[in-house]
Amino acid sequence: MSDSSSLIRPHIRAMHGYVPGEQPVDPDLIKLNTNENPYPPSPRVADVLSSFDPARLRLYPDPMGRKLRQALADRHGATADRVFVGNGSDEILALCTRAFAGEGGAIGWFEPSYSLYPVLADIADIRHVPVALDDDFQWRDPGRPDAGLFFITQPNAPTGMLHDTSKVESFCRGFDGVVLIDEAYGDFACESCMDLALTLDNVLVSRSFSKSYSLAGIRLGYVVGHPELIAAFDKIKDSYNISMLTQALGLAAVEDAAWMEANVKRIRATRRRFSEALMDRGFHVYPSETNFVWIRPPEGLSAADLFQKLREQHILTRHFPGPRT
Amino acid sequence: MSDSSSLIRPHIRAMHGYVPGEQPVDPDLIKLNTNENPYPPSPRVADVLSSFDPARLRLYPDPMGRKLRQALADRHGATADRVFVGNGSDEILALCTRAFAGEGGAIGWFEPSYSLYPVLADIADIRHVPVALDDDFQWRDPGRPDAGLFFITQPNAPTGMLHDTSKVESFCRGFDGVVLIDEAYGDFACESCMDLALTLDNVLVSRSFSKSYSLAGIRLGYVVGHPELIAAFDKIKDSYNISMLTQALGLAAVEDAAWMEANVKRIRATRRRFSEALMDRGFHVYPSETNFVWIRPPEGLSAADLFQKLREQHILTRHFPGPRT
Repeated sequence: MSDSSSLIRPHIRAMHGYVPGEQPVDPDLIKLNTNENPYPPSPRVADVLSSFDPARLRLYPDPMGRKLRQALADRHGATADRVFVGNGSDEILALCTRAFAGEGGAIGWFEPSYSLYPVLADIADIRHVPVALDDDFQWRDPGRPDAGLFFITQPNAPTGMLHDTSKVESFCRGFDGVVLIDEAYGDFACESCMDLALTLDNVLVSRSFSKSYSLAGIRLGYVVGHPELIAAFDKIKDSYNISMLTQALGLAAVEDAAWMEANVKRIRATRRRFSEALMDRGFHVYPSETNFVWIRPPEGLSAADLFQKLREQHILTRHFPGPRT
Repeated sequence: MSDSSSLIRPHIRAMHGYVPGEQPVDPDLIKLNTNENPYPPSPRVADVLSSFDPARLRLYPDPMGRKLRQALADRHGATADRVFVGNGSDEILALCTRAFAGEGGAIGWFEPSYSLYPVLADIADIRHVPVALDDDFQWRDPGRPDAGLFFITQPNAPTGMLHDTSKVESFCRGFDGVVLIDEAYGDFACESCMDLALTLDNVLVSRSFSKSYSLAGIRLGYVVGHPELIAAFDKIKDSYNISMLTQALGLAAVEDAAWMEANVKRIRATRRRFSEALMDRGFHVYPSETNFVWIRPPEGLSAADLFQKLREQHILTRHFPGPRT
């Protein structure tokens, strides 16, 4: 018998885990820190939930989530063999690191983008290939990175900005590995790269139910791409990765996509109004194509101070340190 | 751009995925093939489900599942830092392969036992160290296998038999790696190894909500062990691995463990009656400590024929090929 810590693989012992945004329980807090949707999910979700027979839960769910895959395929004009459903898009991103870029390999991403990517690389003990965006957080051509997998958040987070889709396409065409275009906020944007997942063999586009569908609580994401890449996910996922309730509620939400789209429209209107009000107050507001805005406070006010003052007003946000100078 | 299949890591391209037991939709079928519980979950689960406010689902769940961990810790007389909750115990088994036995390492298990173990080893590209049980499917001392991780199914599946807990303990004490004792069927058995998870630094004991709690549909499992091993799981799991509904329903089920225990008692009575009836008919019945029985048909009837005849009667079972001779 050994000391417990020595039983853990050295790279995992050494790494730091991902720290999710705070999930406070104070109901009076205006919670803006993890970009959830302020509106409830579709009434059809509520109907399915309230009429769900609990006796069904004694059985395993469909391991393949077939109804859900078909509904999502229909939504994107794809065949069901081009769709994989995950326990949140986080599961999909993690599966990508295992399927396309194992030990000895490398993963690329832009900086700043989703801070989970380096953690996924650390978990898999994979080399990091970060590519800095330009000084305005805009696209910088990564060239042909030496990596089996490249993550592009589109629109980007935490900046909220959309990359030029023609630049994304041109990068994908020149890259030898798999490109995962993470469209967690895609429904809020004026453009999508979904077509690339239907036409290019090395492109996957993932989407989430956590933001536009108001269903962060059920843990559901999906990814569209070439059937051979989808089949690889099916080989290596946990056998029953999506609960029966998540499958049923996700299906109800997709079948009422009009509800989601109406909420997206309201959020885009709020985004415009809110951005204008901030600009009037001297904030620099980067043009958002998501459900959040990335701002730089006026001269004399630091992001940390602003965060603290908002917190005192029961408004929870996130702030990021400025670039190192 | 490359041909899609060449983008997938070679060992994943070459491997075969796990094939879960059939999940047929025919409601008239008596479904015995995946060892689900014939009784519904606790009425408290039904109450939580029917009164759940769907508007809550717009928020992320607690990434740590703290209430659930505390309730499970209380149940086993442990502290919450000794409990990890997974998206089914399948997630826990997969995390074990990543935390304790990476590429270049090895995993051991008994044969026959849960057929997922070799698939998990293949996914992680890890060497197999199978140890054959004896001719009666009883414990065979594995010695000190050259592996970072050893899986013991206790009671075993598909045999249904309980390993002598003193032999399990003695193996754990002599083994240099981590032992995951997979007690998916533990609630149906007269003995448990849970104490080892509370006393030995290298032992983890996992449990499932899929069998005794009648909740295969919600995907929930947990594991108890040394806080450092539990902390390793927290570093490498998907950030929000358990849905909000699964956390709420799982908690309701644990808080009414008496309901589960009453069902277990009924199932044990059925098991005894059923085993006796089969023995009366000339079947060899191995002594089951689970919610299923492992049998050998009388001379002249093959398992495959029996499976087929039962299927014609709308009874779905599983059968296994005999030992190679």
